[in-house]
Amino acid sequence: MISRQLVDKLLEFRAERDWEQFHNLRTLSTSIALEAAELAEFTQWAKDAEIPAIAEENHAEISREVADIAILLSYLVHDLGIDLEKAVAEKVEFNAKRYPVEKAKGSAKKYDQLD
Amino acid sequence: MISRQLVDKLLEFRAERDWEQFHNLRTLSTSIALEAAELAEFTQWAKDAEIPAIAEENHAEISREVADIAILLSYLVHDLGIDLEKAVAEKVEFNAKRYPVEKAKGSAKKYDQLD
Amino acid sequence: MISRQLVDKLLEFRAERDWEQFHNLRTLSTSIALEAAELAEFTQWAKDAEIPAIAEENHAEISREVADIAILLSYLVHDLGIDLEKAVAEKVEFNAKRYPVEKAKGSAKKYDQLD
Amino acid sequence: MISRQLVDKLLEFRAERDWEQFHNLRTLSTSIALEAAELAEFTQWAKDAEIPAIAEENHAEISREVADIAILLSYLVHDLGIDLEKAVAEKVEFNAKRYPVEKAKGSAKKYDQLD
Repeated sequence: MISRQLVDKLLEFRAERDWEQFHNLRTLSTSIALEAAELAEFTQWAKDAEIPAIAEENHAEISREVADIAILLSYLVHDLGIDLEKAVAEKVEFNAKRYPVEKAKGSAKKYDQLD
Repeated sequence: MISRQLVDKLLEFRAERDWEQFHNLRTLSTSIALEAAELAEFTQWAKDAEIPAIAEENHAEISREVADIAILLSYLVHDLGIDLEKAVAEKVEFNAKRYPVEKAKGSAKKYDQLD
Repeated sequence: MISRQLVDKLLEFRAERDWEQFHNLRTLSTSIALEAAELAEFTQWAKDAEIPAIAEENHAEISREVADIAILLSYLVHDLGIDLEKAVAEKVEFNAKRYPVEKAKGSAKKYDQLD
Repeated sequence: MISRQLVDKLLEFRAERDWEQFHNLRTLSTSIALEAAELAEFTQWAKDAEIPAIAEENHAEISREVADIAILLSYLVHDLGIDLEKAVAEKVEFNAKRYPVEKAKGSAKKYDQLD
């Protein structure tokens, strides 16, 4: 999603400020949840039909919130030594089995409620 | 964070299941918040000193939760046409101004409380 | 919302298990957020029109999640010495000024966007 | 937690503004999660030892956030016809079985990991 160079810049930004001490599984996961909550605020009271216009009108601000999440996620992935490419690839394979096309097509049901 | 090819695979996975209809700013941002909450559950009751061990012992499960967040974020970035590399780069620059090294070093204070 | 006797029972339940040590502003507020996320999961992918049926079909399970939030909130209110009756009454008065009927009627806009 | 009269006042506040149309299981549960996130922000980067002081210094602001959660919860309980006193009482009984004193005392483990 973002380049290796940009991740390096994020790490440098953090190291310069001596902020590694504030980052761990708890603070980063909580912070991702808090930033996601700010993102969810845009559509807090919206009806379905209003969502596309909200996304369009607030594109710049939404992009900044999404950037915040990506930054926090990058730190977490780095600090925990997660191979994100591998983890996502495995998850997709896993989901492909839980949600076979013939059963899941057009359905928002959870895998344990598909028939 | 993840390769262009893997994002394409995510999009293909979604298209095959006709799931675009369920994805929008609200459902994706809410879902990111819900997945982040599951991630935060690992340290829900933990004391500071217990966090590194929790992160290590649950590495595989944590990687899967992080993958879920990355997948949802990838869909959101794609659907809203966000240039994530640019958005993150701009946010880092913005934060560098709000948090100058000489003031922010070693401090977890918010920018408006730095002196 | 719940009686003084029931709050006492909650406090007794906690004291018997020596769980006060795990409760503080961080763990309780995070836990409320996590429980609210579980509640929000019921409507994660729902269209507007589907929500009443979801609320009806899952009434028992939803009641249990709502109970969890009320329990955590009760602990927080107790531990921080918050006068909830007073705090809510003040908030309503405050909101009545921010959202005067003639401007706010039928609108989901934030107070700073009302005209 | 709050009196019947105050709940009535909340309902009147809402009816005057014609805001029932914006309240349902999704918007209220999401809003509770968003308010809880704001509450969790107070301790976002805090070390264990710093939490009591944060709770004390921000008592007024925290009380307002807690009030917001209680207000949203009151609407949800009302709208879904939940008997909160009963739901909480049942949950305590249920938890008493899942967390018997002799096993759970002094432990933050989940019931399925108690031995």
